[in-house]
Amino acid sequence: MTGHSSGAMRRFIGVDMGGTKILAAVVGPDGKILGSAKMRTKAESGPAHVIARIGQAIHLAARDADISVSEAKAVGVGAPGPLNPHTGVVFHAPNLPGWENVPLGQRLADELDLPVFAENDVNLGTLGELVMGAGRGAQDMVGIFVGTGIGGGIIIDGKLRSGARHSAAEVGHMVVAAGGPYCGCGRQGCLEAVASRRAIERDLRAGVAAGRENLLPDLHGIDPGQLTSKVLARACKAGCPLTRQVIDRAQWFLGLHAASIVNFLDPQVLVYGGGLVEAMGEALLRPIRTVAQQHLIHRTSTPVRIVAASLGDDSVVLGAAVMAQRRWAGASNS
Amino acid sequence: MTGHSSGAMRRFIGVDMGGTKILAAVVGPDGKILGSAKMRTKAESGPAHVIARIGQAIHLAARDADISVSEAKAVGVGAPGPLNPHTGVVFHAPNLPGWENVPLGQRLADELDLPVFAENDVNLGTLGELVMGAGRGAQDMVGIFVGTGIGGGIIIDGKLRSGARHSAAEVGHMVVAAGGPYCGCGRQGCLEAVASRRAIERDLRAGVAAGRENLLPDLHGIDPGQLTSKVLARACKAGCPLTRQVIDRAQWFLGLHAASIVNFLDPQVLVYGGGLVEAMGEALLRPIRTVAQQHLIHRTSTPVRIVAASLGDDSVVLGAAVMAQRRWAGASNS
Repeated sequence: MTGHSSGAMRRFIGVDMGGTKILAAVVGPDGKILGSAKMRTKAESGPAHVIARIGQAIHLAARDADISVSEAKAVGVGAPGPLNPHTGVVFHAPNLPGWENVPLGQRLADELDLPVFAENDVNLGTLGELVMGAGRGAQDMVGIFVGTGIGGGIIIDGKLRSGARHSAAEVGHMVVAAGGPYCGCGRQGCLEAVASRRAIERDLRAGVAAGRENLLPDLHGIDPGQLTSKVLARACKAGCPLTRQVIDRAQWFLGLHAASIVNFLDPQVLVYGGGLVEAMGEALLRPIRTVAQQHLIHRTSTPVRIVAASLGDDSVVLGAAVMAQRRWAGASNS
Repeated sequence: MTGHSSGAMRRFIGVDMGGTKILAAVVGPDGKILGSAKMRTKAESGPAHVIARIGQAIHLAARDADISVSEAKAVGVGAPGPLNPHTGVVFHAPNLPGWENVPLGQRLADELDLPVFAENDVNLGTLGELVMGAGRGAQDMVGIFVGTGIGGGIIIDGKLRSGARHSAAEVGHMVVAAGGPYCGCGRQGCLEAVASRRAIERDLRAGVAAGRENLLPDLHGIDPGQLTSKVLARACKAGCPLTRQVIDRAQWFLGLHAASIVNFLDPQVLVYGGGLVEAMGEALLRPIRTVAQQHLIHRTSTPVRIVAASLGDDSVVLGAAVMAQRRWAGASNS
């Protein structure tokens, strides 16, 4: 009985620290969110202030869950950049000014007086989908998140693959179109350069400028980066010929990329999330699935599953809580 | 003393079963080849005969090592096609007529009265290079074998990654040039379609037919498939402008592919083997390394190592012996 009741008391806190907002959640042993809070990141104020705001978000989430922070066993934080998951040092974060080698884990642990474990946010979104979302039951899975950019995570034997240099799962920077369009990373032909929301927007603007038939709102009035996934989904649904053609092409690249991953790593499931997937759902996934199946080198009786993520914005906080629980249990056992 | 002497007695037999020849070797506990034999496969005679010839090759290798086959603990076989490593059933083998769902492991075990473990040959070549060759000391490694086609193997945490459907590591069928040249697999833009010896030969023949300046032997007299890696290496060395240009391009694709693998899986080392690598060595690898480094998304203080395989034709028999030893030990412990 003691074991059971102490198990039931085990709450973990998950944090999704993004470029614009911080999400914190208290997660119960069954994966239920017991309380949560959202704050603006105010990234421009620098690392120390951002870390203080994470602490505040955690306190607000705890209050929302009717517990004190000290009642949680540990905190998991997802950060938007590569980091060392053992030390909790964030190497750098492209969208957070001043984040160069910031000891996020240690600083937050000092502030909260709790164990804090850090991991890349997209990795945690993938872990969340594995344990509580669309990948449930899988041992080997790849998560692919298609939004402004394209990021991912790799699960092997039920565990996150961080990589020899903690830089694995950069699925958006696998080259699918050698010599193709320039990517935000400065290189050419990366998946992100041909299939991200940013790439789609670039091609739509070029098409509109060239006078191609379209049903898009007047793009002259829309700042670059403002053509949201929802607008794209609406334009597709309305039958905009230009949008359909540009998204068709992005789907073709996503399908080839999916096949490359399956031909290489042979996972059980690919889970697609991110803004564009959330806005378009099956309309986006169906052609990816078709192209991928056509490009698999081995046809097998149990084909790879290609499915949409199911946790939406909660994937990172849930994955962060799962990671915190696993690493806390590992530390407790050793 | 007993433990030591019984350890010293542990010999395993490795077999490399290819489309044209069968190689068998008796391997001592220190990884030394104590005896070996080579036979023609005579693949046209069908699976039963090929399996009988494997048995003969094993007996010849044992005689060469001055032991009887029964003194070996187990046999490891590398087969040229996808298979189930648990059951030893070869699903199919493109270069071996009649090989469809052949229970290679079981049949050979019946014939030899020894435990037999089977695995894909390129996977075993990769394992051989990990344990005894260019990858020594690594935990995470990808092997890439560039010859007529392009195959590979993946090592994660020191172990072969077979994949959820036993079809992982098809590195030659990752798409690098979407919409590019047709591949032997029927699809377009696979690495194999732009960087294998077969792809290089195709481009050289097209260049010669178009009257491009070259120092190649008269290709009209050479049957397709006969432009060997050694001839290519010689033509490069002699400064043949066409050969250099075609190989430059293949190297560029190989470099982009290497970067994609590192950006995705983040291994410690990439080991390149196969006919083209053996014939050209560093002259082939150096540009691959340069292009790969330029396309890594995260520059780190300990960059990925990109090295040539060191075991040559012995990589598969040695990897097969290592696998037999590991799986025999695993079976003995359980």
